[in-house]
Amino acid sequence: MQIGMIGLGRMGANMVRRLMRGGHECVVYDVNSANVQALVGEGAIGAQSLQDMVSKLAKPAAIWLMLPAAITEKTIVDLSNVLVTGDAIIDGGNSNYQDDIDRAGRLAEKGLDYIDVGTSGGVWGLDRGYCLMIGGPNEAVTRLDPIFRSLAPGAGMEVASGRTSELGYLHCGPSGSGHFVKMVHNGIEYGMMAAYAEGMNLMKAANAGQQNRAVDAETSPLQHPQYYQFDIDVTEVAEVWRHGSVVSSWLLDLLAQSLKNDPTLESFSGRVSDSGEGRWMLKAGIDTGVPLPILSSALFQRFTSQGHEQYSNQVLSALRAAFGGHAEKPHGSDH
Amino acid sequence: MQIGMIGLGRMGANMVRRLMRGGHECVVYDVNSANVQALVGEGAIGAQSLQDMVSKLAKPAAIWLMLPAAITEKTIVDLSNVLVTGDAIIDGGNSNYQDDIDRAGRLAEKGLDYIDVGTSGGVWGLDRGYCLMIGGPNEAVTRLDPIFRSLAPGAGMEVASGRTSELGYLHCGPSGSGHFVKMVHNGIEYGMMAAYAEGMNLMKAANAGQQNRAVDAETSPLQHPQYYQFDIDVTEVAEVWRHGSVVSSWLLDLLAQSLKNDPTLESFSGRVSDSGEGRWMLKAGIDTGVPLPILSSALFQRFTSQGHEQYSNQVLSALRAAFGGHAEKPHGSDH
Amino acid sequence: MQIGMIGLGRMGANMVRRLMRGGHECVVYDVNSANVQALVGEGAIGAQSLQDMVSKLAKPAAIWLMLPAAITEKTIVDLSNVLVTGDAIIDGGNSNYQDDIDRAGRLAEKGLDYIDVGTSGGVWGLDRGYCLMIGGPNEAVTRLDPIFRSLAPGAGMEVASGRTSELGYLHCGPSGSGHFVKMVHNGIEYGMMAAYAEGMNLMKAANAGQQNRAVDAETSPLQHPQYYQFDIDVTEVAEVWRHGSVVSSWLLDLLAQSLKNDPTLESFSGRVSDSGEGRWMLKAGIDTGVPLPILSSALFQRFTSQGHEQYSNQVLSALRAAFGGHAEKPHGSDH
Amino acid sequence: MQIGMIGLGRMGANMVRRLMRGGHECVVYDVNSANVQALVGEGAIGAQSLQDMVSKLAKPAAIWLMLPAAITEKTIVDLSNVLVTGDAIIDGGNSNYQDDIDRAGRLAEKGLDYIDVGTSGGVWGLDRGYCLMIGGPNEAVTRLDPIFRSLAPGAGMEVASGRTSELGYLHCGPSGSGHFVKMVHNGIEYGMMAAYAEGMNLMKAANAGQQNRAVDAETSPLQHPQYYQFDIDVTEVAEVWRHGSVVSSWLLDLLAQSLKNDPTLESFSGRVSDSGEGRWMLKAGIDTGVPLPILSSALFQRFTSQGHEQYSNQVLSALRAAFGGHAEKPHGSDH
Repeated sequence: MQIGMIGLGRMGANMVRRLMRGGHECVVYDVNSANVQALVGEGAIGAQSLQDMVSKLAKPAAIWLMLPAAITEKTIVDLSNVLVTGDAIIDGGNSNYQDDIDRAGRLAEKGLDYIDVGTSGGVWGLDRGYCLMIGGPNEAVTRLDPIFRSLAPGAGMEVASGRTSELGYLHCGPSGSGHFVKMVHNGIEYGMMAAYAEGMNLMKAANAGQQNRAVDAETSPLQHPQYYQFDIDVTEVAEVWRHGSVVSSWLLDLLAQSLKNDPTLESFSGRVSDSGEGRWMLKAGIDTGVPLPILSSALFQRFTSQGHEQYSNQVLSALRAAFGGHAEKPHGSDH
Repeated sequence: MQIGMIGLGRMGANMVRRLMRGGHECVVYDVNSANVQALVGEGAIGAQSLQDMVSKLAKPAAIWLMLPAAITEKTIVDLSNVLVTGDAIIDGGNSNYQDDIDRAGRLAEKGLDYIDVGTSGGVWGLDRGYCLMIGGPNEAVTRLDPIFRSLAPGAGMEVASGRTSELGYLHCGPSGSGHFVKMVHNGIEYGMMAAYAEGMNLMKAANAGQQNRAVDAETSPLQHPQYYQFDIDVTEVAEVWRHGSVVSSWLLDLLAQSLKNDPTLESFSGRVSDSGEGRWMLKAGIDTGVPLPILSSALFQRFTSQGHEQYSNQVLSALRAAFGGHAEKPHGSDH
Repeated sequence: MQIGMIGLGRMGANMVRRLMRGGHECVVYDVNSANVQALVGEGAIGAQSLQDMVSKLAKPAAIWLMLPAAITEKTIVDLSNVLVTGDAIIDGGNSNYQDDIDRAGRLAEKGLDYIDVGTSGGVWGLDRGYCLMIGGPNEAVTRLDPIFRSLAPGAGMEVASGRTSELGYLHCGPSGSGHFVKMVHNGIEYGMMAAYAEGMNLMKAANAGQQNRAVDAETSPLQHPQYYQFDIDVTEVAEVWRHGSVVSSWLLDLLAQSLKNDPTLESFSGRVSDSGEGRWMLKAGIDTGVPLPILSSALFQRFTSQGHEQYSNQVLSALRAAFGGHAEKPHGSDH
Repeated sequence: MQIGMIGLGRMGANMVRRLMRGGHECVVYDVNSANVQALVGEGAIGAQSLQDMVSKLAKPAAIWLMLPAAITEKTIVDLSNVLVTGDAIIDGGNSNYQDDIDRAGRLAEKGLDYIDVGTSGGVWGLDRGYCLMIGGPNEAVTRLDPIFRSLAPGAGMEVASGRTSELGYLHCGPSGSGHFVKMVHNGIEYGMMAAYAEGMNLMKAANAGQQNRAVDAETSPLQHPQYYQFDIDVTEVAEVWRHGSVVSSWLLDLLAQSLKNDPTLESFSGRVSDSGEGRWMLKAGIDTGVPLPILSSALFQRFTSQGHEQYSNQVLSALRAAFGGHAEKPHGSDH
């Protein structure tokens, strides 16, 4: 079928390619016309503007946005002025699901369908397919089924059960539910990543007994150094776990590859960004009273890596000095 | 090659079966003679006692133990009295790696090799193979390579790289290192499980806005109920994530299957045991000064599910009553 | 000076009493006229309605609200229709500071000053005084200084430094800042309470080595029972810490008293409510990227005590059954 | 009564002074003879060696050790060779309570009493008195009651209840229990300190909305900057909370003083040491299955401040690069 795509960055461009492989006709637009030309060279139909795109799509039109969250809202407002009743806007980016709910309400007043699609697969989706978590009105989601099916990992397959989840896409519920499920997905991802990271960190420290350790009142002694004498090759460990272990996963596959490429990880400084979903999910846990200790730990680790625990630590040092006369040790003075 | 196996529970018996498939000759023993007979019926050589087993094994003998931690130590002591210099004992159970280090030292004085093997794969290992994390002296580990290769998932395969990790087994270092790596593996598993669990829990709560909520000073109001109106089918979500998403993993495969079998999980009460490795790993983090916030959160959640936070909560309630006159709400009185 | 007080619950009524002790003239109102009559009997001037209260106050009028958060907003709207430019509304309850900011903006358009006052002291404030954290425009806060001074613990005292903070009240900044600081105060309180609670819980468990413990694969054994043989009298410990220790505090004073009154705390079931500030503070940490691991742990403990971790635990049990064949143990089956 | 004191550092010397004020005769020893001479000048009896000290004490002798943990054990062994049946050794330092239990057993075989005393009060104890948590055999603890009473804050007072806890010292149970209770005390202290620290940190961040924030895919945007416009004077807040608030405590008194002296805390770098008790307590929680989320969070924050989360963060960055093509932002590039 026919679909418009706005936003031809790495994700958007690859989705267009996968859709064209699936036999769909793609009308494409990007503020950077070079991105448009590149895809036109691969068979897409280029558009010069939102208006131009709309004119090139049969009714009811369906337009997929793959844009940074910061400009999604403005683009949707602009689009809503050139679309007509029955048309659909699909947001495949990482919007806050609460914004989706508000937005869907506003667009419904204009007769427009709004569909939010949480998309996982990252830079690997072109070949592996994209796992799609979809929220929106039943009729519109059903109409767009061929699009979702082509993007999903199971493109071209059939499953006896008829469950689209087995093909890698799912209609999760009304508008907002797609990004809600994607938000939870990303929160779980934060926790899984942090679980691997701390395990790797401990394996690195398995030789702590071989290292010199300051002997003073400010350093807790290592009581049994004989138990910390291992030099573990974490690159090999990550690889072996990929085969038959309970912790095998796609993230572990990536980790094993990263370690193989850069065994010391010295190309990374350890400043870890976070991009929104983890924060939103933690707020949803607060609203609903659901304990999320794994997510909060993972998120706070990232905040700390960004330097935001500094003042808190200064307060601790000030208190230790005040009640016990403890002077701080210089940074880097113990193992 | 030839190997002895002591402990023919589900894990031990299936390992014997996989070894026999690999062409090895297995001498087997268990305190329950029925377990011995069952495997004799499948081609194993039965033994009546430790002494009998040793007499049926050519020198140097290698004997694998697959026993509960509680009786492993005694069995090793008994074995060490009937083995001779050059023989090897392999502990495939879940011993504390620190006990391994002590034990290896004692056995080395008798000229015996001690090899600790962390084994992942659980009830699925017979067909998938077992991921093996091996600690012990180089020579002994090399001698037993055919055994490890047959047990591992890559049995019968070759890899160009020559890395055994790609076949699913790894010599991690000296005695104790196998169980150390397995301990870390299990700690990561705790974290991953908890990450999925809290994500599922939040999705279950996505309909909180539909529920009645007490309006009183002891209940925090849900400010925006319109954002919590989703009825999410977590069984379908677990399935869709298996296909192309960043959180796909073997644990997720199992979770999707469990939810398919019992969508409400009402066959589970939510009392979660823990079996040692998580505790040992947290202690290792304490010894080495490595922060393990994910593991500690996951472990404490289990302790709490076992009822161990009760008194702490009573203290909190007592304090709230004391400073603010807050009376407790009865259990189950809010959503 | 003269002040109106709306909301004559325990907190509001005691504040009126303390203000009258300080020589102020109080006009009081409550939906429950019995509450009004009680205070009239002690010297206050009763009002029949908001309008009546306003008519009994000289200009510029100042009206203090001590109401549940749920009805504060409506009351303020009503009040704003009977007050005139230059009058002031003081919210002494536990509003969300973000609502204060919005509200102050709306009231400023009508020429009304809005002052938010975080009030700590609970049921003890009548005699100890109330610690006041004040947000609002400089002029209005200055005008009301005699009121704040009488309510604060330092009523009637002078300090050489001139710092009102030494008397127990503080103008923290513009509207909202008073409740912001109170929110942080309460979040710290959550953490302190939880710190004491878990310490008490561990002392209770110091006799774990005397107890029978199941011996099975689902129970982690207590390795060194000789180290857990203490029967510690936590009531006495709470008392001794009050005298000269680093952890002495007013909360500890209360805890020692509670334990003296009810040494087993068996009058408490352990269901711990939370009332908003902790949730708001955690959200503020998320917004600003500030790690709040203590608060989140304390808050999640309360959520869990309310039963909200149940489904998460069922997921864990389902996973353990799936990969390892672990059956759940019945609740209460181990120590 | 008469007592020997070994270890005349700040703590030990001040305890001797307080004991002499209480009318006790103190025989003192230190490896640094200048420390001995100083106290001799204040009225103490100097000793040249352990043997010399013992010869100057009437039987049964009681000798108090105030030494770094690292040399306590050796000194006790040496002492046990010059003491005789009925004599008592008191360890007032910060030994691991499990070592106490082992040690008490060994000394009992020689007829010596061993008493462990957890001592809180730090540099302030000389004037405020020391809060004492005492473990040991009944008879010996009773014999030494005048010593404990003089050291405790309540020296010279009587309480109607007869509870020594009201005077600031407590016989907690058999050997080891004193340091067990002190360990828990310090663990609570970690949690309280961390609670204040994170609250202060959030107040510092209350002006986040005034700061420039990078606008890119790697930085989570601050959605509502209007709510983060406060410049809060944390020095004043710490002071005001000391007066009538629920979070008032001795630690808060110290914090308010520290902030008054150094409002920016810029004399502290934020590297926070930990000295053992927190680690031991967390291990005790692990052994007994008691959740200690506050302590673990506080302890891990310190580990992180010491640099031990670095590799974990590099793993996270590597994973983010691998699945999403996210490049790290340089340190210090966002607020």
